[in-house]
Amino acid sequence: MRYELYYWPQIQGRGEFIRLALEEADADYVDVARTKGGMDKMMRVLGSGQRPPFAPPVLKAGKLLLAQTAMILFYLGNRHGLAPKDEFGRFWVHQCQLTLLDFLVEIHDTHHPIASGLYYKDQKPEAQRRAGGFRASRLPKYLGYFEKLLAKHPRGGLAGAKLCYADLSLFQTIEGLTYAFPSTMSRARSRYPRLHALHDRVSARPRIAAYLNSRRRIRFNELGIFRHYPELDE
Amino acid sequence: MRYELYYWPQIQGRGEFIRLALEEADADYVDVARTKGGMDKMMRVLGSGQRPPFAPPVLKAGKLLLAQTAMILFYLGNRHGLAPKDEFGRFWVHQCQLTLLDFLVEIHDTHHPIASGLYYKDQKPEAQRRAGGFRASRLPKYLGYFEKLLAKHPRGGLAGAKLCYADLSLFQTIEGLTYAFPSTMSRARSRYPRLHALHDRVSARPRIAAYLNSRRRIRFNELGIFRHYPELDE
Repeated sequence: MRYELYYWPQIQGRGEFIRLALEEADADYVDVARTKGGMDKMMRVLGSGQRPPFAPPVLKAGKLLLAQTAMILFYLGNRHGLAPKDEFGRFWVHQCQLTLLDFLVEIHDTHHPIASGLYYKDQKPEAQRRAGGFRASRLPKYLGYFEKLLAKHPRGGLAGAKLCYADLSLFQTIEGLTYAFPSTMSRARSRYPRLHALHDRVSARPRIAAYLNSRRRIRFNELGIFRHYPELDE
Repeated sequence: MRYELYYWPQIQGRGEFIRLALEEADADYVDVARTKGGMDKMMRVLGSGQRPPFAPPVLKAGKLLLAQTAMILFYLGNRHGLAPKDEFGRFWVHQCQLTLLDFLVEIHDTHHPIASGLYYKDQKPEAQRRAGGFRASRLPKYLGYFEKLLAKHPRGGLAGAKLCYADLSLFQTIEGLTYAFPSTMSRARSRYPRLHALHDRVSARPRIAAYLNSRRRIRFNELGIFRHYPELDE
């Protein structure tokens, strides 16, 4: 079965968490909105069916249409060996993923605290206030939490020795934060050795490394969730 | 088995989505932080175990410790007949719940657009800007989406004829929005007849009605997620 992924074609965004899982699983998929006429197809999928999705990312798996990043990863993780086999292990990885996605909203809102429908330039002073609080308290709270989790599995990931999809998402989060807040992340590096070690191990995995070097990997840019605005960094 | 729910004792917050499911299921549970010494117990649970939760709500079910509202509801829904029996039906209800929780973050951030660690009074101008955009575009987008979903099941809920936990959460969302934005919600009432009908059907269910009239139901207040600040309403 060839999966169809529907996501905004110009950005990594939430779609990237799905792409990383599909790539690590060596799954057959097409990134529909990046193909010719794909945006029209995506718009049709969004309003369609008995169970229409609210927003991308959307994954079509045969007749099944799934939305919500964490839901899609729960589905893919179970089918491609990217989650533990026991139910409670699966719940745990899903729970980690949901916490990472809560973090992601806060990361996004550093540059869009007022409205996602406005440009960054129309909410710059508010963004600077929000980013200040984010760097001072929310960023260390989340990173400290995940660092503590990794301490329970030296040389492993969030679910233990075997890689899970939330490890891929944690890699992407560290990668994105390093792009968006290079100075903050560089100063704090020594506080999060396990997060950085996991990041490096994930990026060295053969399929992930090949993906990151491919044209399938969209570059970070200032349309996405992780944006580099120097005035929001330290 | 008696469930132990851990959540902030002064507010409905995210815990309320769990409480509503437990009440409708007539499940045996204790709202730990509202008992004597309960806050200390909650603080111990937050840092504990091999799989420590990031934040409340947390549900202890025997030896199992679950966090993340949507994850807890997924677990409870399957065990208490508040979700469809088939896997894809369960996925669908979970997906609806995740979308409702995305909505909830946006509702919260109308009064806390800059930092959850600051008081409302320290972010009032920003809150007015954010609330304006919320009322004009985000609120109708989410409500319109759920209204459209309900149109697929006349006289039913998000999963069809049988009540699911996401219907309870949708009730709570409408209830909270009506508290927080009475003028906006009153004006828009005729646009969302199905949402209001579902709200009324849920609140008339015997166990829910009994709960809402009990002391177990915390009143809405200005410490919670749904806050009534007239200057943020129309």
